[in-house]
Parts: sequence; structure tokens; C-alpha cells
Amino acid sequence: MTKISAYAAKQAGAPLEKFQYELPAIGNEEVDVKVQYCGICHSDLSMIDNEWGMSQYPLVPGHEIVGEVIALGIEVKGLKVGDKVGVGWYAGSCMHCNQCLDGNQHLCGSAEATIVGRHGGFADTVRSHWSWTIPLPKGIDLKKAGPLLCGGITVFNPIILAGVKATDRVGVIGIGGLGHMAIKFLKAWGCDVTAFTSNPAKEKEILAMGAHRVVDSTNPEALADIAGSLNFILNTTNVTLDWNSYLVTLAPQGRFHNVGAVLEPMAIPAFTLLMGEKTVGGSPLGSIALTKTMLDFCVRHSIYPTVEEFKMEDVNKAIKHLKEGKARFRIVLKT
Amino acid sequence: MTKISAYAAKQAGAPLEKFQYELPAIGNEEVDVKVQYCGICHSDLSMIDNEWGMSQYPLVPGHEIVGEVIALGIEVKGLKVGDKVGVGWYAGSCMHCNQCLDGNQHLCGSAEATIVGRHGGFADTVRSHWSWTIPLPKGIDLKKAGPLLCGGITVFNPIILAGVKATDRVGVIGIGGLGHMAIKFLKAWGCDVTAFTSNPAKEKEILAMGAHRVVDSTNPEALADIAGSLNFILNTTNVTLDWNSYLVTLAPQGRFHNVGAVLEPMAIPAFTLLMGEKTVGGSPLGSIALTKTMLDFCVRHSIYPTVEEFKMEDVNKAIKHLKEGKARFRIVLKT
Repeated sequence: MTKISAYAAKQAGAPLEKFQYELPAIGNEEVDVKVQYCGICHSDLSMIDNEWGMSQYPLVPGHEIVGEVIALGIEVKGLKVGDKVGVGWYAGSCMHCNQCLDGNQHLCGSAEATIVGRHGGFADTVRSHWSWTIPLPKGIDLKKAGPLLCGGITVFNPIILAGVKATDRVGVIGIGGLGHMAIKFLKAWGCDVTAFTSNPAKEKEILAMGAHRVVDSTNPEALADIAGSLNFILNTTNVTLDWNSYLVTLAPQGRFHNVGAVLEPMAIPAFTLLMGEKTVGGSPLGSIALTKTMLDFCVRHSIYPTVEEFKMEDVNKAIKHLKEGKARFRIVLKT
Repeated sequence: MTKISAYAAKQAGAPLEKFQYELPAIGNEEVDVKVQYCGICHSDLSMIDNEWGMSQYPLVPGHEIVGEVIALGIEVKGLKVGDKVGVGWYAGSCMHCNQCLDGNQHLCGSAEATIVGRHGGFADTVRSHWSWTIPLPKGIDLKKAGPLLCGGITVFNPIILAGVKATDRVGVIGIGGLGHMAIKFLKAWGCDVTAFTSNPAKEKEILAMGAHRVVDSTNPEALADIAGSLNFILNTTNVTLDWNSYLVTLAPQGRFHNVGAVLEPMAIPAFTLLMGEKTVGGSPLGSIALTKTMLDFCVRHSIYPTVEEFKMEDVNKAIKHLKEGKARFRIVLKT
């Protein structure tokens, strides 16, 4: 038995409280990770508030974990005690379905989310399957790497899926935790980058990250001005937008890609897609191999989220800061 | 001046009447084609009825034309008098915009539709730009080739855009003029083919065309039974469907593609796209080069629409037959 000290919500919407729980003996394929840093993601808030109806309490949030391997099962592959590792939204997948065998473990029907039905990284230790315990590349900045494991791979994967090229004109909607990382990736990609934000106060910071221009997403004329120009748009928000006004900003064969879990069905005019050979898609996170590729890319290009650090014991203060829209741009908790 | 004998609707929804008009001297880049066969497409009916608000009367429908070159302007390339040619939905495009120069002439913003603001192929002669006057390959069946120029390329292009492979499981919604050609193409592609139809009376014929199974699209349980199985769905209908029930039949990374001009915005749940890395797209027709590639493919595989032939002077009888849903599966008029 391993005793874990954590922070948990005891019921939907409750502030986090100190919480201890015990883990059984480690499984053959499992890894215990001593948490050093853990990012706070909007999905943590959604889970605390049971927005998706799948929360179980007490709920220990935290799924942008950076830490060190402290224990291993006998069948664990590729890891040893002392390795620096990351754990993101998924802590395991079945490894034998077609999706897992095909390298798309993030699409596994029985993938295990780190904070769904099990306890996450707002704790001193977290347990995960070896496959989703990602070895961190040499030279990575541990303090800032956490958010790459969830928010980072979530915006990196669509760039790969859409086959974005250096010659493309691209747009990012919503310049928060996810969007600001997308801007940094797309700058490194060599693209012409347009940032759509409803908060023009962020303009200077967004331009400094690598965007070529900032468009006020609340101004329909600003969208109309760039009609037909973008090859790829990544939407990181989870609210209902005037979808067609963005689809119209796409060039022929342009792709619109959602990573936000918009609850209301999107009203998509078939004719807009048809006449321009456009597509609307979406994706969750990314595969294990792509996560590793992304981390190497981040080290090579010095791409990290812009983070604010809080102490783990100040987690409620950090959550309040995020909820008030004050995070610039991602919060990381330090144990 | 060239005098043309045609059939025209004098006003929205009117039956076609004999109609004569004159064409000015042929332009440098233009071609006159003596019509031998012309298919009837649902778009002809939509234009006769002014469903899209862009019809001008008298309106001569017809844009699935097979015929012979009888006159040429001095700058026409690649054609000579006597050549057998086809003309489809487009009769010209600008040839100098980025889309035209990039081989996507069907996405040209000023492409000229054969029956929009000009007269089409329910006539003894039709005029077109050389670029969109497609030389027909040797050995093609002229009687059946007409519908390939519009309906055929409309369903062929998505198969290319989506990168459909022989190992894919695919579905086609709506087994009419377009859908039945899609079934034949996808059979030749080597795919496992599911046909969705609301008319089970067509089952035997659909299986004979190469579908592996026919699913009753009016039965939600039949759709639920094949959840997660299809890599590609081509929707050839233009009515509002229960979009999510089809998206759920897609396997992870599956693509849903519309070629029907559905008028009401599609209600697409972002979450379904996101969790399965699925996309929804659309396309109109296809490029000039792809049309030629398709025609070669059709000759090589003996792929033709299943047609019913009417005499051009019986055009109103033919339209009635189509409107009553009796066409099996495409109607061709013979001059």
C-alpha cells in the first residue's frame, strides 16, 4: 500500500481540500511518479464542476504532470527509477485494440483518463501505465513542460493532422492556455499566423509570441476583411461561434479544426463547405509517439507555454486566478 | 451568327418549349459542340425551378453533354473539328487565378456554369471554353458518358480528396443518379461498400452494382448496428439528415463528405468530431485534369452510369419520370 497526499474536491464545484488515499500494490505494467509540477487545465475545472457528468468525488484533478519515476512494475518498458517523465490527460490505454496497435492510442475506446474514475496530479504521487508515462527529453525545462502534456499536444496534433505547411496562412481562435501554445508552434512552423481574440488587451503579448496580426473576433467586419485567406483555422474555444463567418475566412480547401468541447451542435452550412472544398474536423490530444515528437520539437525550438507558478498548497488561489480569466497564459503548480 | 435550336423553360417551373437563339461569332478561345447526348441532372430541375435564385429565363438546361467539335476559335488548344468531347457543369473558368493555375479550376471564383446566365445542352449545339471541353478517351461509350461529366466527377472527386484506399470500409447515402455511380467507383477501388437508401425496393439492383450490403437509412437501429465501422461516407442527398447518427457510424479518423447542396445548416456535434478525429467536408465537381483521369478510369473498368434513354423531343416526359423518382438511375437525352 502506498499512501498519497493530494488535494481533492469533495463534491461538484467545491474548493479543493487536503485529501489522503491509498494505492494498492503496484501492478506489473504500472509506474508511480513523484509529482514535481502540475499544470492547471480548463478540463480540471470542468471535472471539478462535473460539467461533463462523469466526475466522481472525492476528485483529485491534475493531468499536466511532470515528475520522477519512483516505482515500477515488473513489466514496465523503457523506464527506470529516477527518470524524468510526464503524464497528461491519459494515464493508460488498452494497447491491443486496432487504434492502440495502429499508433493512435489516444483514440482507444477504453483509454483511461488521468482524472476520470481515478486520482490525478494535484498530489505528491500519481500512478500511470508505462505506455502513457512519457520520458522527457534531455534539456527540457521541467518547470514549464507540464502544460505541453495536455494543452500542448492538443494543439500540436491538429497541425500534423491537417498537414499544415510553412507556406500556409493559419488562424488561431482564442488565445488562452491552448491558443498561445498554438501560436508558438505555428510560428516555428514558418506560417503566416493570425490570432483571433475577443480580448484586444492581449494584443502586444500575442504579437510577441509570434502572431503576425491580431483580429478582434467580436468584429464581423474584421472577419469579412480577411475572407478567403486562411488555409487552416484552429479553434481552441469551447463556446458557440458564428461558424460560417470563420468558414468564410478560409481559402479554398481550407480546414477548420476544433479542439474545444463545444456543447451545442455547430450549425455548419453544407454549401460553404461544398463550394470551397472545405472541411470541419476535431481531435482530442494526440498519440504517444506524437507527444514524444512534440517534446523534442519543443526542446529544439525552445517552445514552452508562458507560465505563472503557484505553490501546490495555493491551488485554490490558482484556480480562482484562472476562473477570473487572469492567467497569462497557463498556471503550473509546484509541489 | 450561329442559330441554335434548343428546349427552354420560359419561366420558373414551366415545362420546356422549343426555343431558338443566336450565338455571336465564335470567340478566340471558344468551341462549338454539336450535342449528341445530354444527361438530365437534379441541378437542371433546381435551375428550371429557380431553387437557387440564380436562374435567368428563357433557361436552356443541360450540362452532361457529349458531342462533337464543329467549330473552333483561333486560340483553342488541344482540340480539332470532329473530336468527340464532353462538357459538364462548367463551360469555362478564368484560367489565371491561383485556383485555376493550381489545377483547381472547379474552385475558380469566376467559373462559368454551363446553364447559369447562358444556355446549355438541351439543344443541337452548345458553346464552351476549350479548357472545359474535355476530349473523350478512345473506346468510351458515348451513349452513357454524359452523366460522368457532372454526376460522375462530383462523386469521383471526394474519393480522391479523402484519399480512400482499397482497404477502407465506405458508405454511400442516397442511391440515385450520383450515388449509384459512387457505388460503382468504390467497388472498382476495392473497398467494402455499404449503401444507405430509404428505398429498399432498389436493394437487388444496388447489390448488383457492387455494394456489399444495403442499409435502410430510415431505421436508426440499422445505423446503430454498424457504429464505428466506416472510414468514409459520401452523402449524395440534399436533405437534412440526422447527421450525428451517420457520424457515429464512422470509425476513428473517418471522413463524412457532402456533395448534396443541403440548404439548412447541418447540426454537427463538435464532440463527436473531436473524440474520433473525424471530419465533415464537401466538394463541388472536380478539376479538369481529374475529369480526364476519371474518364480513363471509366474506360479501363467499364464504369458507366445505368441509364435510360429518351429522345430530346421527349424531354418533358423524361423530366416527369425523374421527378416521380422513377429514374433507374440516370436519364440521357439523345438528339
